[in-house]
Amino acid sequence: MRAGPSQDDVRRNNLGGLLRYVHVNGATTRAELTTRLGLNRSTIGALTADLIGAGLVSEAAPRSAGRAGRPSLVVRPESGRVYAYALSIEVDRLRAARIGLGGRVLEQYEAERPPGMTADEAIQPLARFVATMRTGVPDGARCVGSGVAVAGMVRQSDGMVRLAPTIGWVDEPIGEALRSELGGYGRISVGNHADVCALAEHARGAAAGSDHVVYLYGDVGIGAGIIAGGRRVTGHGGYGGEVGHMVVNPYGRPCSCGSRGCWETEIGEHALLRLAGRADRTGRDEVLAVVDAAMRGDSQAQHALRQVGDWIGFGVGNLVNIFNPEVVIFGGTLRDVYLGAAAQIRSRLNAIGLPACREHVRLRTPELGTDAALIGAAELAFDHLLEDPLVS
Amino acid sequence: MRAGPSQDDVRRNNLGGLLRYVHVNGATTRAELTTRLGLNRSTIGALTADLIGAGLVSEAAPRSAGRAGRPSLVVRPESGRVYAYALSIEVDRLRAARIGLGGRVLEQYEAERPPGMTADEAIQPLARFVATMRTGVPDGARCVGSGVAVAGMVRQSDGMVRLAPTIGWVDEPIGEALRSELGGYGRISVGNHADVCALAEHARGAAAGSDHVVYLYGDVGIGAGIIAGGRRVTGHGGYGGEVGHMVVNPYGRPCSCGSRGCWETEIGEHALLRLAGRADRTGRDEVLAVVDAAMRGDSQAQHALRQVGDWIGFGVGNLVNIFNPEVVIFGGTLRDVYLGAAAQIRSRLNAIGLPACREHVRLRTPELGTDAALIGAAELAFDHLLEDPLVS
Repeated sequence: MRAGPSQDDVRRNNLGGLLRYVHVNGATTRAELTTRLGLNRSTIGALTADLIGAGLVSEAAPRSAGRAGRPSLVVRPESGRVYAYALSIEVDRLRAARIGLGGRVLEQYEAERPPGMTADEAIQPLARFVATMRTGVPDGARCVGSGVAVAGMVRQSDGMVRLAPTIGWVDEPIGEALRSELGGYGRISVGNHADVCALAEHARGAAAGSDHVVYLYGDVGIGAGIIAGGRRVTGHGGYGGEVGHMVVNPYGRPCSCGSRGCWETEIGEHALLRLAGRADRTGRDEVLAVVDAAMRGDSQAQHALRQVGDWIGFGVGNLVNIFNPEVVIFGGTLRDVYLGAAAQIRSRLNAIGLPACREHVRLRTPELGTDAALIGAAELAFDHLLEDPLVS
Repeated sequence: MRAGPSQDDVRRNNLGGLLRYVHVNGATTRAELTTRLGLNRSTIGALTADLIGAGLVSEAAPRSAGRAGRPSLVVRPESGRVYAYALSIEVDRLRAARIGLGGRVLEQYEAERPPGMTADEAIQPLARFVATMRTGVPDGARCVGSGVAVAGMVRQSDGMVRLAPTIGWVDEPIGEALRSELGGYGRISVGNHADVCALAEHARGAAAGSDHVVYLYGDVGIGAGIIAGGRRVTGHGGYGGEVGHMVVNPYGRPCSCGSRGCWETEIGEHALLRLAGRADRTGRDEVLAVVDAAMRGDSQAQHALRQVGDWIGFGVGNLVNIFNPEVVIFGGTLRDVYLGAAAQIRSRLNAIGLPACREHVRLRTPELGTDAALIGAAELAFDHLLEDPLVS
C-alpha cells in the first residue's frame, strides 16, 4: 500500500506522544521513553532529534550514571524557552502567568477584581500583565499561544462567556476581546475554570494517572470539570459540567438560576454561612472560620458542616452513579468543607452510590492550589502544540 | 525521520477509517470516500484493494451513472460474508442474531425469559441459538466475534454481571460462561443494555451524526448510555450511566438499591402504574394502556402521566446541565411515556436546564426499535475489527 501523505500523520502522532510524555512527566531517559511509548530506540532517537531541532526539548547525559555501561540520555522539555500565557478571571482575582512547557510557572501576576468590574475593565489589567511579562522573555524563546480560564459558562467555539453569575457577566465576548488586545501572541483558547483545573490536576496533580475524574470547584457557586476515558467532557457547546445546577432538593430554596434546590443552594458558601448563623458574611475566610469553629467545638458550626457535608455526599453519590470515577477532587472552598466534613460526606456517598460505582473511588483535595487554573489554562494552549509539535 | 514500525499504524488507521465509514454509512463511492476521509484517490484505491483482499468490502460500478465520464466505483461492506453474533439478555426476553458488517440483521431468534431464570439456565438457549445460526452460515463467511447486551451493571474487563436487579442476578460471570460455551467463535464483549443501545442509535439511528448523546432506557428500572465527544462514557469499571439511581427526591419512596427517591422510583413503570391506580399490574402493555387511557380522557391516567412526565423532565434537566447533549433519546417504555407527556417533560426540562445547556438539545424516540440492543451488541464486536481490520 502506498500512503503518501500519511507518513506525516505517524510522525506527528509520535512526536506529539513523546513531547506530551516529557511535558507531563518531566525529564525522562531515552530508555524509559522507548518502553513507555512502545517505539524502538532508533525511532526515539530520530523523534528526539526532530524535537531538539524545533527547540522543544533538550538532551543531556544524566547527572549520575547509576549503572555501568553507556548511560541513557535524558530528554527534558525546554521549559525556559517554550511557554504559554495563562490568564484566569476569577470572582475576586485576575491572574496571569507565563508557564513553560512542562507546566513550570515562570512568572506570575495577580490583582484584585473588585465587585462589579466589567469585562472591558478586566481585559485591560490582563493585557498589561502580558505586556509586562513579554518584556522579560529571553531572546529566542517561543510563545505557543494563550489559555484563559473564566469562572463561567464558556462557548468552546469562540470563547464567548455566556453566563458568569458569580462575576456578574452575561454574553461577554472575552475570547474575541483578548484576541484583539493580545494579537500576535498566538492562538487564544478560553475554558471554564473548573474544566481547566480538572485538566491541571489530571496532568500533574491529584488525578495524575487516573482517566475517570470528577473535579468539583466551589465558592458561592459549584462547578465541575469532568474527565472520562482520559478526555474532557465538555458537551456540545462547551457548557457541560454544570453540576451546581443539578437539582437535589425539589423542596429546597430558590436558586439564582431561577430553579429551586440546586446543589449549589445546598452546599455553596451561602448555605454554609447561613446554617452557621453568619448569613451576613461571605468569602473564603468566613468559610474557613466556620470549619475552625466546628473543630473547636462550636455546635452551630458543627451542625452547619454536618448539614452541608450531607448534601455534598448526596450530590457526589449521584455523580458517582453517573460517572463511576476513580477520583473525586474537592477544590475551592469545598476543599476546606471536605476536610471538615469528610466522614459525613463519605457516609452519605456510601448510602447513595451503588457499590460497584463507588468501590474504587478516592476522595481527594487538589494538589496544585490556586495555581491550578493557570496551569490548566496553559494546558489549553499546550494542547495545540502537543497535537502537532512541528507546525503549531 | 525513519519510522519503521509506524507505517503500519497509518495503514491500520486509514483502513479502519474507510471500513468504519462504509460500515456506518453503507455503500459509498470512491469519490465520496476521498472527500470524507481526506485522503487522495490513489490511497483510497490502495486501501480499498486491501479491504477487498481481506474479504471485508466489495466494489462495483454504480447501478446508474448519473453523469458523463467514468463513474466512481461504489464500495460496500461485505454484509453477507462478515458478521458478528449478537446476544441480548433482557428482563423478559433472550435474543440472538447474526449481524452482518454494516449493521444488517441476517437472522434473528428470541425466546421468553421466564421470571427467576438463572444465569446458567439463560446461557443454554443462547448457545443453542448460536449453534443453530452457525449451521446456516455460508461457506467462506467470517465471524469477527460476539457482543452481548445485559440489562445490568457489567464489569468491562471480563463481562462479569455485577448486579442486574430487574433480572435478579448478582455477580454472574456471563462473559466467562459464554466464552467457555461459545469457544471458537472469536472474542466476546459484554456491555450494559442501555450503553449498547446508545451505540446503535449513535451509529445508525436517532443520534446519527451527533457526538453528545444521552440515551435513556426505561422499564421497571432506568439506565442510560452516554456518549460524549463521540465516545462512550463507561466509567472506571464500566458501571457509569446509572442515572436511575440519581436521587431526585430526597423525601421520596424507598428504592430497591437501599436508597430513597432515586429517579427510577419516580419515573419507572411501578411509579406510573401506581399513580394510575393500577399498582397490581406490570409490563409494557400496561404502560401502553395507561398512555392510551390518558389519550382517551381518563383523568387518573392523565394525572399519572403528568406526574411522571414532570419527574422525567426534572432528571433530564439535571443530565442536560451535566452533559450539554445534542440529543436525548427515550427508549424502552420511556418512549411511550415520552410520547404521552412530551409537553410536561419539555416544560420541566426548560425550568431546570440552564439556557446555554439546553438551547440545542433535541428530544427523540429511538429509530431502531427492539433491535437496538442486538445491533449495539454487534457494534461491540465490530469495534475490534474496525480498529485493526486486517489483523482481527
